[in-house]
Amino acid sequence: MNERTLIKNLAAASDGPTSVSGWVETVRDQKKVQFVVLRDESGAVQLVHPRAFNEDGTPADDALADTISALSQGSFVTASGELKHDERVKLGGVEIKLDALDVASHAIPETPIADDSGVDKRMDWRFLDLRVPKHALIFKIQTTLEHAWRTYWVDNDFIEIHTPKLMASASESRAELFEVEYFETKAYLAQSPQFFKQMAQPAGFGKVFEVGPAFRADPSFTSRHATEFTSVDAEISWISSHEDVMRMHEELMVAGIAAVKEKHGEAIEALFGFELQVPTTPFPRIPLAEAKRIVAERGYEVPRHDDDMDPEGERQIAAYVKETYGHDFVFLTDYASSIRPFYHMRNEADAGLTNSYDLVYNGVEISTGAQREHRVDVLIEQAKEKGLDPEELDFYLDFFRYGVPPHGGFGMGLSRVLMLMLGLTNLRETTYLFRGPNRLLP
Amino acid sequence: MNERTLIKNLAAASDGPTSVSGWVETVRDQKKVQFVVLRDESGAVQLVHPRAFNEDGTPADDALADTISALSQGSFVTASGELKHDERVKLGGVEIKLDALDVASHAIPETPIADDSGVDKRMDWRFLDLRVPKHALIFKIQTTLEHAWRTYWVDNDFIEIHTPKLMASASESRAELFEVEYFETKAYLAQSPQFFKQMAQPAGFGKVFEVGPAFRADPSFTSRHATEFTSVDAEISWISSHEDVMRMHEELMVAGIAAVKEKHGEAIEALFGFELQVPTTPFPRIPLAEAKRIVAERGYEVPRHDDDMDPEGERQIAAYVKETYGHDFVFLTDYASSIRPFYHMRNEADAGLTNSYDLVYNGVEISTGAQREHRVDVLIEQAKEKGLDPEELDFYLDFFRYGVPPHGGFGMGLSRVLMLMLGLTNLRETTYLFRGPNRLLP
Repeated sequence: MNERTLIKNLAAASDGPTSVSGWVETVRDQKKVQFVVLRDESGAVQLVHPRAFNEDGTPADDALADTISALSQGSFVTASGELKHDERVKLGGVEIKLDALDVASHAIPETPIADDSGVDKRMDWRFLDLRVPKHALIFKIQTTLEHAWRTYWVDNDFIEIHTPKLMASASESRAELFEVEYFETKAYLAQSPQFFKQMAQPAGFGKVFEVGPAFRADPSFTSRHATEFTSVDAEISWISSHEDVMRMHEELMVAGIAAVKEKHGEAIEALFGFELQVPTTPFPRIPLAEAKRIVAERGYEVPRHDDDMDPEGERQIAAYVKETYGHDFVFLTDYASSIRPFYHMRNEADAGLTNSYDLVYNGVEISTGAQREHRVDVLIEQAKEKGLDPEELDFYLDFFRYGVPPHGGFGMGLSRVLMLMLGLTNLRETTYLFRGPNRLLP
Repeated sequence: MNERTLIKNLAAASDGPTSVSGWVETVRDQKKVQFVVLRDESGAVQLVHPRAFNEDGTPADDALADTISALSQGSFVTASGELKHDERVKLGGVEIKLDALDVASHAIPETPIADDSGVDKRMDWRFLDLRVPKHALIFKIQTTLEHAWRTYWVDNDFIEIHTPKLMASASESRAELFEVEYFETKAYLAQSPQFFKQMAQPAGFGKVFEVGPAFRADPSFTSRHATEFTSVDAEISWISSHEDVMRMHEELMVAGIAAVKEKHGEAIEALFGFELQVPTTPFPRIPLAEAKRIVAERGYEVPRHDDDMDPEGERQIAAYVKETYGHDFVFLTDYASSIRPFYHMRNEADAGLTNSYDLVYNGVEISTGAQREHRVDVLIEQAKEKGLDPEELDFYLDFFRYGVPPHGGFGMGLSRVLMLMLGLTNLRETTYLFRGPNRLLP
């Protein structure tokens, strides 16, 4: 391993010999002194090289100066020299007086994207786009968020599962399904781990979680949809209703956001310009019918003919919740059975409603959760009502025939959570490599 | 949430009212007393119900007794009653005298698998197979292992990434590639996250990891191959050689196995019958050519005509390492470039060799790692040598044209690690739901 010091650690290091590695952000090639700003994954530092001169004032032979003059922006180098603390240096209060510069890899001098490039162009060159500290920060936050979630789950005795993404049939619906050539037959890409995380319930696993890819052959080109996304899923046994799922879900969100604020709160303020709020529990809960009344009173009539909320309705109810309770989250509950999948349990008192919810964060839905129907006869009836063929679902229905505890869970889009947490408007920004109907590269 | 007590916590609880939930393992329906063994995800407990009798000795009306008599094995129930500690009870030293039994879900009485069912039959009914404590333990161990790995990575400033599984072209080779109908075009399922985890290097991420699915259209039916598997990947910047990758890799293995031993060591002894060994570092390292000489001296000639090791050779060298160094792991290093992918860096002193390794655990290969070739001109030459068309790789080659640090990493099969750790011989046992050429269900 090269013995580099991370740039963020230079400020606390003593003056003296040091070595850093990273990529060249800028070169100022002046007559008397050369300056290089070098960045690594932790920060940026100024490298300085005073040119050598002969006694008569003409430039002396200076191989290091020639190396610096030839440096293209983006090249990866290792720099060694003397670390010096100097309060006048704006960039971190330190600089390195160069002794040597070893170029590991020269960059093509013409950078194909600029600060003002459009998002599609930036996605074409995602590996360069991610060098921008603000963009890289998103994935550091992702790391912290996921680790806090998993730590919550592990501390609460959840089992981590990896369900197969290759399936013999659809998991949610026949629509939006990717088909795979599978030896002599066809397979389909899982639209969610729904059936298989439910399988952990009759298996007696108790509580499970999974973070993994899901696939939707969705031809839409919105800023909120992707054909492949990272799904965050949990499923728990012995619940009394969806209320138990919501309680776990809100604890999880608090654990995640608190960890992000603790580790990245300052960086978020510096690069995104706002202070991250850790939500309090319980999150507000509003039955969907009531949410529609509230939204209507605010002067917005949801223009959908089914019973669902639309994006503007979600924004409106979120605004109401923010004004009324000062909260960034709201659970919309009791969705109509007409717009929920067959496996959602219906409300005991009103079969037109389900024991389900959507979680809205800063005005956009990030998750759907529910109690599942575990009584196989009821489940079969509900599947038929939705026009599904119970025979095709037989492998799934078997999960319920040999004993199963009451259970429920949720699925949540990772990139959506990050997008809403950071006040962004496009999933492309919070996905490492976005996939859409016309985006398979890089 | 129902207010159940986990069965493992009963021994430490006081005598008195309690409630447990789980599935019925056995019913002993005797004339005077009924016994039920109930299991949940944490353990098993005996429930007792003395039947009620009239004064004349005839059976009295006893709804609870009728419920117990009708209980089928596998049904999920909630049992409430009086907890009583009693040393004579073999099962945990406690029993519960039943007050009530609520059946959440009746099981079909005929269980389709038995203790002696073959592995394929068991996989057909995986959700029942996983109720066996020994089988469930595997996934508790998986949870602990992964969490320890991720904690190691997070503590060492790695960034977690989720690379796309849908690709426009092959990642490793044209062979064994699954094809997906993708709107008006074709996509391919990623055989590994190789190209995209390397992309994090020019992106300046420094160190990255990913745990996610990978797909191989491998038609073989061995106990070691699957068409879908969970790949554990890491990639780090600024290495001097593959030695730096091996150092990180062995630290990771120690962190994972130590955590498993601490949390599950006793359960492994009880259910698998051996004491898990935490390896010491450094792991032995043997260049492949030397390993072949050692194996030959032991009387085994590797029957392959290429330069690779075969499974028996791996077992032989592992036996040698165990005898000589008492170690369960060995890094075989310096594989010939003829049998390594084009992106492995060649040895500076001998271009016929690569800066690469395989990690062998208890006699079977679990991982391949290497330093990557980061010089784009060399990379193009190596791709051509392997018969690949650099134009098709253009999106990947771009990662190297705009500056990239020297880097390397490894990919490792999660189920293989678990299989070797637990002395099992079939990946089907350590995969939640196995996928093979003729296995897409459940």
